[in-house]
Amino acid sequence: MIVVMRPGATQEQIDAVEARLIEFGFKTHPIYGEEKTVIGAIGDKKVLSSESLITLPGVEKIVPIMKPYKLVGRELKQSKTIVRVGQVEIGGDEVVVMAGPCAVESEEQLLTAALQVKSAGAKILRGGAFKPRTSPYAFQGLEEEGLKMLAKAREATGLPIVTEAVDPRDVELVAEYADVIQIGARNMQNFRLLQEAGMAGKPILLKRGLSSTVEEWLMAAEYIIDKGNDQIILCERGIRTYETGTRNTLDLSAVPLVQENSHLPVIVDPSHSTGSWKLVAPMSRAAVAAGADGLLIEVHPDPSRALCDGPQSLTPDNFAGLMQSLRSVAAAVGKKISH
Amino acid sequence: MIVVMRPGATQEQIDAVEARLIEFGFKTHPIYGEEKTVIGAIGDKKVLSSESLITLPGVEKIVPIMKPYKLVGRELKQSKTIVRVGQVEIGGDEVVVMAGPCAVESEEQLLTAALQVKSAGAKILRGGAFKPRTSPYAFQGLEEEGLKMLAKAREATGLPIVTEAVDPRDVELVAEYADVIQIGARNMQNFRLLQEAGMAGKPILLKRGLSSTVEEWLMAAEYIIDKGNDQIILCERGIRTYETGTRNTLDLSAVPLVQENSHLPVIVDPSHSTGSWKLVAPMSRAAVAAGADGLLIEVHPDPSRALCDGPQSLTPDNFAGLMQSLRSVAAAVGKKISH
Amino acid sequence: MIVVMRPGATQEQIDAVEARLIEFGFKTHPIYGEEKTVIGAIGDKKVLSSESLITLPGVEKIVPIMKPYKLVGRELKQSKTIVRVGQVEIGGDEVVVMAGPCAVESEEQLLTAALQVKSAGAKILRGGAFKPRTSPYAFQGLEEEGLKMLAKAREATGLPIVTEAVDPRDVELVAEYADVIQIGARNMQNFRLLQEAGMAGKPILLKRGLSSTVEEWLMAAEYIIDKGNDQIILCERGIRTYETGTRNTLDLSAVPLVQENSHLPVIVDPSHSTGSWKLVAPMSRAAVAAGADGLLIEVHPDPSRALCDGPQSLTPDNFAGLMQSLRSVAAAVGKKISH
Amino acid sequence: MIVVMRPGATQEQIDAVEARLIEFGFKTHPIYGEEKTVIGAIGDKKVLSSESLITLPGVEKIVPIMKPYKLVGRELKQSKTIVRVGQVEIGGDEVVVMAGPCAVESEEQLLTAALQVKSAGAKILRGGAFKPRTSPYAFQGLEEEGLKMLAKAREATGLPIVTEAVDPRDVELVAEYADVIQIGARNMQNFRLLQEAGMAGKPILLKRGLSSTVEEWLMAAEYIIDKGNDQIILCERGIRTYETGTRNTLDLSAVPLVQENSHLPVIVDPSHSTGSWKLVAPMSRAAVAAGADGLLIEVHPDPSRALCDGPQSLTPDNFAGLMQSLRSVAAAVGKKISH
Repeated sequence: MIVVMRPGATQEQIDAVEARLIEFGFKTHPIYGEEKTVIGAIGDKKVLSSESLITLPGVEKIVPIMKPYKLVGRELKQSKTIVRVGQVEIGGDEVVVMAGPCAVESEEQLLTAALQVKSAGAKILRGGAFKPRTSPYAFQGLEEEGLKMLAKAREATGLPIVTEAVDPRDVELVAEYADVIQIGARNMQNFRLLQEAGMAGKPILLKRGLSSTVEEWLMAAEYIIDKGNDQIILCERGIRTYETGTRNTLDLSAVPLVQENSHLPVIVDPSHSTGSWKLVAPMSRAAVAAGADGLLIEVHPDPSRALCDGPQSLTPDNFAGLMQSLRSVAAAVGKKISH
Repeated sequence: MIVVMRPGATQEQIDAVEARLIEFGFKTHPIYGEEKTVIGAIGDKKVLSSESLITLPGVEKIVPIMKPYKLVGRELKQSKTIVRVGQVEIGGDEVVVMAGPCAVESEEQLLTAALQVKSAGAKILRGGAFKPRTSPYAFQGLEEEGLKMLAKAREATGLPIVTEAVDPRDVELVAEYADVIQIGARNMQNFRLLQEAGMAGKPILLKRGLSSTVEEWLMAAEYIIDKGNDQIILCERGIRTYETGTRNTLDLSAVPLVQENSHLPVIVDPSHSTGSWKLVAPMSRAAVAAGADGLLIEVHPDPSRALCDGPQSLTPDNFAGLMQSLRSVAAAVGKKISH
Repeated sequence: MIVVMRPGATQEQIDAVEARLIEFGFKTHPIYGEEKTVIGAIGDKKVLSSESLITLPGVEKIVPIMKPYKLVGRELKQSKTIVRVGQVEIGGDEVVVMAGPCAVESEEQLLTAALQVKSAGAKILRGGAFKPRTSPYAFQGLEEEGLKMLAKAREATGLPIVTEAVDPRDVELVAEYADVIQIGARNMQNFRLLQEAGMAGKPILLKRGLSSTVEEWLMAAEYIIDKGNDQIILCERGIRTYETGTRNTLDLSAVPLVQENSHLPVIVDPSHSTGSWKLVAPMSRAAVAAGADGLLIEVHPDPSRALCDGPQSLTPDNFAGLMQSLRSVAAAVGKKISH
Repeated sequence: MIVVMRPGATQEQIDAVEARLIEFGFKTHPIYGEEKTVIGAIGDKKVLSSESLITLPGVEKIVPIMKPYKLVGRELKQSKTIVRVGQVEIGGDEVVVMAGPCAVESEEQLLTAALQVKSAGAKILRGGAFKPRTSPYAFQGLEEEGLKMLAKAREATGLPIVTEAVDPRDVELVAEYADVIQIGARNMQNFRLLQEAGMAGKPILLKRGLSSTVEEWLMAAEYIIDKGNDQIILCERGIRTYETGTRNTLDLSAVPLVQENSHLPVIVDPSHSTGSWKLVAPMSRAAVAAGADGLLIEVHPDPSRALCDGPQSLTPDNFAGLMQSLRSVAAAVGKKISH
């Protein structure tokens, strides 16, 4: 930690800051510049409230030096984490495509979609049973009934399933049915839900919050790993910006940025980020080229009748075509998408 | 709802869209312009997925005409809602100031703060027992023990208390102790928590999400009121923008914007929005001048030792000085802050 | 400047960074922590490219310690700058209201507006002759003809005029007619225009850029003051955020933040920031309460026929009513608005 | 245009709006819904100020139906525009890579860089002679001397050059030396500069503004094409968001979004958008996979000594390696990068 004193800070003020730092267990190293004094403070990071020092007289700012995350970081664990979902490995050479409808609407809709995405090469089936919706009047999902339909679709296709939990009270129930538990963007800082996810005994797909920095996203993963679960897949799904031409702004730079700073695999959701099925194909290709470990894509048998997110859902035909082109892009960057 | 067709959309495409609208229970009114056709669709708003029509051939965009919220809106209820907390009324002539420490740290700290803010004129005591923190390693609050300290402080001072619930499982517990249950910014779209809040039988203070539009904020309130609880206080607390000179960007325009569109009272939190105690006084005055129904201000007996949010906490002396100046501003806009 | 080395940086890498810093004229002060080494570097700020050091092996980040602006800062000049426009002083006890139409449309429209805003208490007349418009097909202003109309309106009313220059080639011409030259938000980083403004011999009203930080805004002012002109009025006019309920997001916290860091006066434009005449009155009052040195308000004799920015223009009657209430708010914060 | 009336708008108010629309040359088509009336207005788009109608009593909002741009849009011209720079074609099958230093620093530096990027496969040389810098104390470029060095480098390598103009007064001078004139992000709405660029007789590279929507960007291009110059290359270079882990947020979705709406070619600058040389390679690959027509990459012989943008500059070796991998990605999406 570096404490920067204001120009004109008195020696008394500097001494008081040093005294407080020493009281808090730091060793101090003041550097007297021509205009400003800075105090290097080495020591115990457990002092949680060191930011409060800024209120001492003469202090201009506090500059943290250490990264706030530990267990998810590359500094402690250099080798990449592989998340295992049945036979599927996320974080290795294979770019894993997860696909399916936004929401489970009926047994028929789900099974149709499941067979279609499987035949095109998807490795994991997605589908929401609990749907967090902006409006209380919008379709909220089939809940446990939906989970059962997902389990049937898994039985019929052999595809593992990823589905969202939105309430700490439901994590156990979702874990009974799901192979991967999704934490949605709106819940990225629902810390109780993260803690339950850390104890659920299943891999977690953690979406980035709508306005979360990459650092905050990694801190959210830290909540999960801190409870003993390192099987975490990060998912970039677009952030909120001023641009209204797309639903959100897909921040693909986050993919290599996460990979530089964390050992966890990171995938991309081109559907929620763009909000428009026409942009899903180019952004899926871009995500693979940027080095993403996988994709999460919405596919619906008839998007014009979808109860949720129709505008961004691919038809099964468009999805099959996309998968073809993704294989070439994956190969171009030394990865593969197997059949 | 207006469906805008692309230039060059065929009559067949237009007919297909009309047929689908009619199937969904709408009456249609096509208008043929020189370059584009638009179809006015009147009817049942229950068709939840009308946005999915955009995937039909020839459709360019869908323009909703109705506002998405109902019960919180001015259209259904024109008179302003008064929220009653004991003797205190929020939404009337009095600008209600709620103050206290970010977190309950100890009985002594809380009681000291409570007496100080009361003597300066605060009408409600704030203090967090459950603290949602970005880092799992930061102080997470004293939980139920903290709630008990709050109850003791209420007993000692007579001030009603507002404190946060972060988990649907805790709402009942918090409701036992609190006079007002706070839903924090990170949980604004934690819909299960909102639903529990709607059934808690206590007034709710609903903070705006970090990157929520005013419309989404009102939709979150709609989740609460839809469960039968109209005692909702909205709280603007700053939004996330690119500006790094402040912790968040206080969006004061949201105050009159909410008041134009909703009957619910709206207050302002100048502490979290600015992140700097030096900005709290001018922004509190600005909030009152903008017409806010109240303020939520962090005050700590010794901010430099606060376990949470020290940089934005006022000292008791600064708070007392601020209250004086707020009385003049309130009077200038036809409101009052009583002693 | 602080250079933070990565964990595991070798002594050789640390030495190489020190050697480079010394080559660049710095004195170095390394501090060896348990996990990371940081190097304090004291010395010549003229080395313009010190950020490039981050590319040296083992460097994690560069933390600047000095503020990037000098002449506009409080550190060099503590007393507030008063900008003088004829008899009007901006930056003193008086809250100076500038008002008038967005664009000069005709002699009659301008003169009507001028007389109306004067009688309500405005001290400076605004009106655009050169209009920067998003669309090349929108009304672009009357140019020199508009400047002449402004001069006539000044003659008729005695009000000094503020009007915008959008091209370095026009600054001289605008300076002939205007009492204050406005640099618009879109041109805040049009550095050539800023330099011309610095040599124009007239006070400058510098609007904040749509997505500029307060620091970048002060740096833009530094371009003007660096050419010898310290008669600069800063104008907050809303920033671009994700919120669509208002045209921009008025960042009122910028007012006290600027005043803490700079000696220049700062005013607020509630019209462009909100984009809605209904929000202009509450946000004007809020701006005065926040400590703004003045206001810039759009007033049009018939907003429904305005060629530009009608939705955010006040009618003369509404403006007169607003001025009344502003006087009370100004008094409440120890300022005044004279008749 | 659709005018949406408020619920409860009177027939008199509706009639008054219709009368005004008719006065302005529109044909009106009112649709009476259960709660709201909307009025479809067909006709003359030249009425520039129709937004001002919102101030008429009873009007809730105005919804434009037509796109604001014409000449740059796909509706008027469906076939893609090819921009020709000597032998180089931008907008065809070849992904055109432009590379070189941020700023021209010396003849030697530039020539070294030029030979290096040419040998790796770049087709156009970039280098700034006029540098818009946030600080007046930063290196501002060598100006005309720099232009001469660029001309010499072109002579020595055969590479056409792209360089920035920052002042309408310099466009003619820059046009004498440059093969492509760049309009920088900060000047995207410097409309006078755009108009000069429209008359310069040289291709224009138009960077997206830091906080511009795609629609505003296309409107800026409309200013250029409206003056008769359709040789415009759009360049996505990152937008300003709250994320601080990268310099800006590269909005790659803008590439297919522009291509859907405009016939102009669009390239990507992975250097300014990320601000970090480590992210340049993956984001360059992503840009090509997203369908970009070219890339603009900063390469410096020794980034650690660069006078400008060192942190985001590739070494010549890293650039050569990147070009290899880009060829594979281009092939995977049916494009090529020739030697």
